[in-house]
Amino acid sequence: MASSMKSFVDVAPGSQFPIQNLPFGVFRPSSGATPRPGVAIGDSVVDLSVLSDAGLFSGPLLSNSTCFSQTSLNAFMALGRPAWKEARVTLQKLLSADEPTLRDNDELRSKAIIPMSKVKMEMPAVIGDYTDFFSSKEHATNTGTIFRSKELALPANWLHVPIGYHGRASSVVISGTDIRRPRGQTAPPDGKKSPEFKPSAVLDFELEMAVFAGPGNELGTTVSVDDAPNHIFGFVIMNDWSARDIQKWEYVPLGPFLGKSFGTTISPWIVTLEALEPFICDAPVQDPPALPYLTEKKRFTYDIPLQVAISPEGESKASVICNSNFKYLYWTVCQQLAHHTSNGCNLNPGDLLASGTISGPDSGSMGSLLEQSWAGSKEIKLEHGGIRKFLKDGDKVIMTAVCQGDGFCVGFGECSGKILPALPM
Amino acid sequence: MASSMKSFVDVAPGSQFPIQNLPFGVFRPSSGATPRPGVAIGDSVVDLSVLSDAGLFSGPLLSNSTCFSQTSLNAFMALGRPAWKEARVTLQKLLSADEPTLRDNDELRSKAIIPMSKVKMEMPAVIGDYTDFFSSKEHATNTGTIFRSKELALPANWLHVPIGYHGRASSVVISGTDIRRPRGQTAPPDGKKSPEFKPSAVLDFELEMAVFAGPGNELGTTVSVDDAPNHIFGFVIMNDWSARDIQKWEYVPLGPFLGKSFGTTISPWIVTLEALEPFICDAPVQDPPALPYLTEKKRFTYDIPLQVAISPEGESKASVICNSNFKYLYWTVCQQLAHHTSNGCNLNPGDLLASGTISGPDSGSMGSLLEQSWAGSKEIKLEHGGIRKFLKDGDKVIMTAVCQGDGFCVGFGECSGKILPALPM
Ligand SMILES: [Ca+2]
Ligand SMILES: [Ca+2]
Ligand SMILES: [Mg+2]
Ligand SMILES: [Mg+2]
Ligand code: NI
Repeated sequence: MASSMKSFVDVAPGSQFPIQNLPFGVFRPSSGATPRPGVAIGDSVVDLSVLSDAGLFSGPLLSNSTCFSQTSLNAFMALGRPAWKEARVTLQKLLSADEPTLRDNDELRSKAIIPMSKVKMEMPAVIGDYTDFFSSKEHATNTGTIFRSKELALPANWLHVPIGYHGRASSVVISGTDIRRPRGQTAPPDGKKSPEFKPSAVLDFELEMAVFAGPGNELGTTVSVDDAPNHIFGFVIMNDWSARDIQKWEYVPLGPFLGKSFGTTISPWIVTLEALEPFICDAPVQDPPALPYLTEKKRFTYDIPLQVAISPEGESKASVICNSNFKYLYWTVCQQLAHHTSNGCNLNPGDLLASGTISGPDSGSMGSLLEQSWAGSKEIKLEHGGIRKFLKDGDKVIMTAVCQGDGFCVGFGECSGKILPALPM
Repeated sequence: MASSMKSFVDVAPGSQFPIQNLPFGVFRPSSGATPRPGVAIGDSVVDLSVLSDAGLFSGPLLSNSTCFSQTSLNAFMALGRPAWKEARVTLQKLLSADEPTLRDNDELRSKAIIPMSKVKMEMPAVIGDYTDFFSSKEHATNTGTIFRSKELALPANWLHVPIGYHGRASSVVISGTDIRRPRGQTAPPDGKKSPEFKPSAVLDFELEMAVFAGPGNELGTTVSVDDAPNHIFGFVIMNDWSARDIQKWEYVPLGPFLGKSFGTTISPWIVTLEALEPFICDAPVQDPPALPYLTEKKRFTYDIPLQVAISPEGESKASVICNSNFKYLYWTVCQQLAHHTSNGCNLNPGDLLASGTISGPDSGSMGSLLEQSWAGSKEIKLEHGGIRKFLKDGDKVIMTAVCQGDGFCVGFGECSGKILPALPM
């Protein structure tokens, strides 16, 4: 699509949401209103339920669909890539500068296009299952080195298996939701026999991205690695909050549980594969080569620059502490999805597949405080003299992602959350 | 409740579903019909949507509820213990031998009470999240001895933490659903560098029980161990099918994933805590004592005898290969639930919490073939000369649970599934 494409809706230069993006989300136009699907454009939100009621989704796949009259995007996600493309084409036409249908209909336009500042974003989908992968070689190497040794950093299976585990779906929340510092069981202190139950003292973020699954597959069937893009609706930014002390004591032998399940934050706007097409790039070469079921005919990933900032309570300025990129991931989202279904496991529309912590080659691109502080042995400097090893109460963690196109940006908005103090003991 | 209580509905002596049981499920009266809630009695199913439409749930909590007009029990589960008790009291009265309302109304009775042989059972709830625990000391010790050594059998945290992990909710299926042997990645064979991708050669069952969660709790709040019973709707039998070769290669460091997610079977009838009251018994004494947040004012569990049989394809007779009991579990379901929410993780109505494999003190009570065959080093004898180390294609695994009361039984029906051959390579 031409970078010169323009909308009649105001889009400031450098906006994350030009007509080339059009990410999908779910919002309430006012606090008591029913949630409904929308797309972001400039500083506005387009109410898809209004456009649908007005009969403006007139293409063959959407004209008789009620998917935009739902309180979540699950029904739309179930329709698959051809319907997603039809919606995008329809919306780009309706919103373009030279299309009068919506532009010149004052009543419909004022009903359908709402200032973003007035809406409340909600979870875009009902998440049936949430899976977290572990696909950054740098992150796996860093944590392996911290917990074992440089020589034994990568587990024996890591270069062969896109390792993943099931996460807690119920506690995935939308950006802006406060996160309460969890209490939990931690290892016996030195010289003691009994473990403790107390507020986590080692609270961390994990910079990740996640995809929402599309139509899904039946139990007992698989999705091939080359068909995987047809099963991916789009991307969000994700913060997999982690209590390292709880996690460390609980995770052998069955994996992370309460060290993660107290909260996971996602950004509200789902950016589609179509919007990300201009940012396709090569994925890392794999050595040893992947097994055939994980070998892509055309291997690719996306160049998505990522940033993490911490804004302590009462500070006016956030401190950027990490610059990373989605493209560093060793295992691609297509490999993750093919692996996930390789045993016949069924995916449903609205399932969330997260990348795992995204770390890059240098210390400024490490996607967690565990890595940045090297397990608490180093201090991370914030603006105005603040320092951190792990998160303090009141800290707000803000993750952003903006792709720089030729004359336009494609952004993801913000994935943020503030730490509340633990419940009293 | 008196063991002498009788229903006007025929209940054969020794039936698993006398009026003292009344387990809840979801069924279709015929194959095209809408799923609806029911209870089992004798060889019949009572259609709760019919009773509700007739205004027969006239108590204060249910008279204005639409919970029995739903296709799942989630709405009923959300109402909490007082509503569950009201439903039970109402049903025991309506079904009792000396109550004319239903007994003497031919039209209503024939609409509401359907032969069990004619109905199709469905999943009783939409499962938002499924958690699997690891609460049998005997099972943890057996598997630890097999994979490590007798001295290092129990992980350091095991006696302090009711270890659990998130399982895959989408692939939990109702008893009777065939299970396809999964394909998956397994460790490099001796002398080779590359792992293999092939049908699992080490397919197993795990004998478990599971509870459906009741009203749930908000994110950031906890449920105390003594309040836990108010958050448990009832119990089912569960088979956590496991591909040991896939599991072994993938599970370090983040836990089981594709070795489990190809299918998990549950029995269709949910037996309530009220029905299980006559079978309350002491739970194992814990040494060392549990931390305060896991210490019950009154510690208890249930005496539920369990049995596993294998029925090979074409054999008329199933071979019983395991006799175990729910009461062997070291961590109680109340401790599991309190631990699960101790970090503020939210439970939703319909969430499934499974016990982990239930093994007892002797070899005949081991709840998996991994243990019974001691990792394939011993043969398990079936009827008619058959032997097994792990499951073969065509094998049907049948799990049952029947509590023996004073003059009546409380049974769970059957949790069964047959193994289909893997997809071709
Ligand atoms: Ca993670
Ligand atoms: Ca299990
Ligand atoms: Mg998390
Ligand atoms: Mg399973
Ligand atoms: Ni497909």
